[in-house]
Amino acid sequence: MSAGWFRRRFLPGGPLPEPRPAGPRSSPVPYHRPRFLRGSGSSPGATDASRRPDARPVRSPARGRTLPWNAGYAEVINAEKSEFNEDQAACGKLCIRRCEFGIEEDQEWLTVCPEEFLTGHYWALFDGHGGPAAAILAANTLHSCLRRQLEAVVEGMMAPQPPMHLSGCCVCPSDPQFVEEKGIRAEDLVIGALENAFQECDDVIGRELEASGQVGGCTALVAVFLQGKLYVANAGDSRAILVRRHEIRLLSSEFTPETERQRIQQLAFTYPELLAGEFTRLEFPRRLKGDDLGQKVLFRDHHMRGWSYKRVEKSDLKYPLIHGQGRQARLLGTLAVSRGLGDHQLRVLDTDIQLKPFLLSIPQVTVLDVHQLAVQEDDVVVMATDGLWDVLSNEQVALLVRSFLTGNQKDDPHRFSELAKMLIHNTQGKDNGATGEGQVSYDDVSVFVIPLHSQAQEGSGH
Amino acid sequence: MSAGWFRRRFLPGGPLPEPRPAGPRSSPVPYHRPRFLRGSGSSPGATDASRRPDARPVRSPARGRTLPWNAGYAEVINAEKSEFNEDQAACGKLCIRRCEFGIEEDQEWLTVCPEEFLTGHYWALFDGHGGPAAAILAANTLHSCLRRQLEAVVEGMMAPQPPMHLSGCCVCPSDPQFVEEKGIRAEDLVIGALENAFQECDDVIGRELEASGQVGGCTALVAVFLQGKLYVANAGDSRAILVRRHEIRLLSSEFTPETERQRIQQLAFTYPELLAGEFTRLEFPRRLKGDDLGQKVLFRDHHMRGWSYKRVEKSDLKYPLIHGQGRQARLLGTLAVSRGLGDHQLRVLDTDIQLKPFLLSIPQVTVLDVHQLAVQEDDVVVMATDGLWDVLSNEQVALLVRSFLTGNQKDDPHRFSELAKMLIHNTQGKDNGATGEGQVSYDDVSVFVIPLHSQAQEGSGH
Repeated sequence: MSAGWFRRRFLPGGPLPEPRPAGPRSSPVPYHRPRFLRGSGSSPGATDASRRPDARPVRSPARGRTLPWNAGYAEVINAEKSEFNEDQAACGKLCIRRCEFGIEEDQEWLTVCPEEFLTGHYWALFDGHGGPAAAILAANTLHSCLRRQLEAVVEGMMAPQPPMHLSGCCVCPSDPQFVEEKGIRAEDLVIGALENAFQECDDVIGRELEASGQVGGCTALVAVFLQGKLYVANAGDSRAILVRRHEIRLLSSEFTPETERQRIQQLAFTYPELLAGEFTRLEFPRRLKGDDLGQKVLFRDHHMRGWSYKRVEKSDLKYPLIHGQGRQARLLGTLAVSRGLGDHQLRVLDTDIQLKPFLLSIPQVTVLDVHQLAVQEDDVVVMATDGLWDVLSNEQVALLVRSFLTGNQKDDPHRFSELAKMLIHNTQGKDNGATGEGQVSYDDVSVFVIPLHSQAQEGSGH
Repeated sequence: MSAGWFRRRFLPGGPLPEPRPAGPRSSPVPYHRPRFLRGSGSSPGATDASRRPDARPVRSPARGRTLPWNAGYAEVINAEKSEFNEDQAACGKLCIRRCEFGIEEDQEWLTVCPEEFLTGHYWALFDGHGGPAAAILAANTLHSCLRRQLEAVVEGMMAPQPPMHLSGCCVCPSDPQFVEEKGIRAEDLVIGALENAFQECDDVIGRELEASGQVGGCTALVAVFLQGKLYVANAGDSRAILVRRHEIRLLSSEFTPETERQRIQQLAFTYPELLAGEFTRLEFPRRLKGDDLGQKVLFRDHHMRGWSYKRVEKSDLKYPLIHGQGRQARLLGTLAVSRGLGDHQLRVLDTDIQLKPFLLSIPQVTVLDVHQLAVQEDDVVVMATDGLWDVLSNEQVALLVRSFLTGNQKDDPHRFSELAKMLIHNTQGKDNGATGEGQVSYDDVSVFVIPLHSQAQEGSGH
């Protein structure tokens, strides 16, 4: 696989190469040298963060250029956890071909004029672990999967109401009534497409990593602006928030071994063989010791949101399925996130115990109806990997955003780019007075700042 | 089993008979003739709704009596769906013995003086289906299970912070720090006790119904006021809301085949044998017909919150796991709720397909910190079975509550009782002008109105 092959995937609305079947490969997937790209023109592209041995934020060479698709502004920093940046990003214009016929029936679409595309915008952050391979693959693949999934349902998205049958005849005269009763709207098709795209991308990554003998996984946080709505899909511990003058709104929630404790314990309850007798499914306030045997200690099982006491048995002394607190919580002693892409081969050190069965590639999707929002000029969405949120709270970020945008010229074409840069600077121990602290993030940090005003203006043209 | 045996369970703080082992029984559990009881003195009791062939609300014979434990006020109506009322209720004082030793080690507790009891209040509504047997058993059993579960952890509840070890020595000097880090508070032990009590009660009902050759299930909605907090535990489609002058707050959410679609589909995905090849796990806007074969139709699977399209195969024509809309939605064509107690023997008509594997007896627990609330005199919690909520919205109920309490003498000892009665009247097609409608509920309807002000006052004495 060559880098050029990746690039071919970026052709807007163009044909996507079919995922290759898994199999032995002579050449491994090359680690892309991290680059910092602004999405340019109309093609999504992986953001391109130069490796920075000084761990300083990387700036775009195209700084300040007015992007035709209001792309938002990214800053990426490499904390040198690995040779290449484990944070990867992608952004660009989504061009969804409005095919009346299935792709299989009509290969003439290459001649279709541009007016037959439904366009949207796409931003994505991927925070890799175990190397950057999965994050790079995701940055190069997910938008293609999403475009394919959207093209499969675009006919339904463009209808006043999704039809019961796609490209087919109405079998039952009251079909629209059933769709109405179920409350199915165009946005449900976009949510479904995002869910399916994440799964498809996960399959592709699994095949590619296996074929190239590489390993690793990544979180995925995606924002899509389409038909006047912003969709935020999250699988992992990155976060997106809406910052307005008088409002902070969470647009995603984190998926970690702690937040998904019950789902994970439930799975271990259903399939105890997944723990291979090496782990205990139960949660205790701390790891138990031999001295605890026979005592009654605090515990929680899969069905419990509350706590209770149980008498400690020998099997309770095993290492816990989920162990540690807050950011330190680990699944099977190994992984800090419970959703994401990749990790198909990941095993607990020195055992044959797999982590993948406990991981979900399905994102949670939040919908923001931008047209209903009476958007102000300084309303922005901040998307960032955990490197930012470990150091700054939502309130601190909102404070920084508001004070920065208030003090900046509205017509400064660099202001959102400068804002993203400033947010990252604030994770590097620089006390700028706004937060009164000088905390340091030792993780990779990536930030997108998406100005909603330009989205709403452009979206209203549809 | 005699009715007297049930009554023995009501002894406040008294010994609870051990659940009997399942086995053949010579005498069936008698259907309790529904009675309408106000909790009196300090013992919880099943509410006692006389069978009313005229489907008019039943009033308490002890109307207006000032109850020493601020019990709240119940009204129950029988819609004649079955010979006896399928709605059952229980309320009373919870007396939790503060044992320093395990019950097994010290049988001398009967002589313990009353000061060593932690007291709380308990209200519960059970909406039966397939007959009243499960609802009656639940009304007679759940408070005992809860008391037992609370007594098992009361030492931890009374401590400034639940200790890592109950009735034992500290093994690790930093135990309090671990408990602190996990954020475990006394209220988590109450939540755990409620969760465990529901499960224990479900086990008791299963054994009792099997032993007596009876069938049926019920929903369960429980409110417990303890140590200044109101806990609302719900398994089913009853509902509790807080109504204040300027606020309506949901204290529970409903568990139906629709609201728990993903959990139920996931289970069928994990254990396809549960469907015995007779049902399809997938959701479609309507039941598919032969004419749909080969077409692309809207569908959802377990992992999807959004919708997508799939090409219809023959297996998609089977009856859906969850079918119907809103209040008409049914699990396996049979049941309208997805959580509750009982139904251990319930099978799909004329098949061997069991429903119990899909049902959860675990409640969702909401905590209201009454002491933090700055409670006003007219703040009430309204608990009711679906018979009320099918006909009146939260807003309509709040409107009725506010206008009734504003127009009533604050010192009228009957006002909350009259309010509960008025709410039920509003489900019987009587247009009183407040809602501008005259809708009719053909279901059993049960309502508790709990004045929070008296709870807060009494609770502050602790």
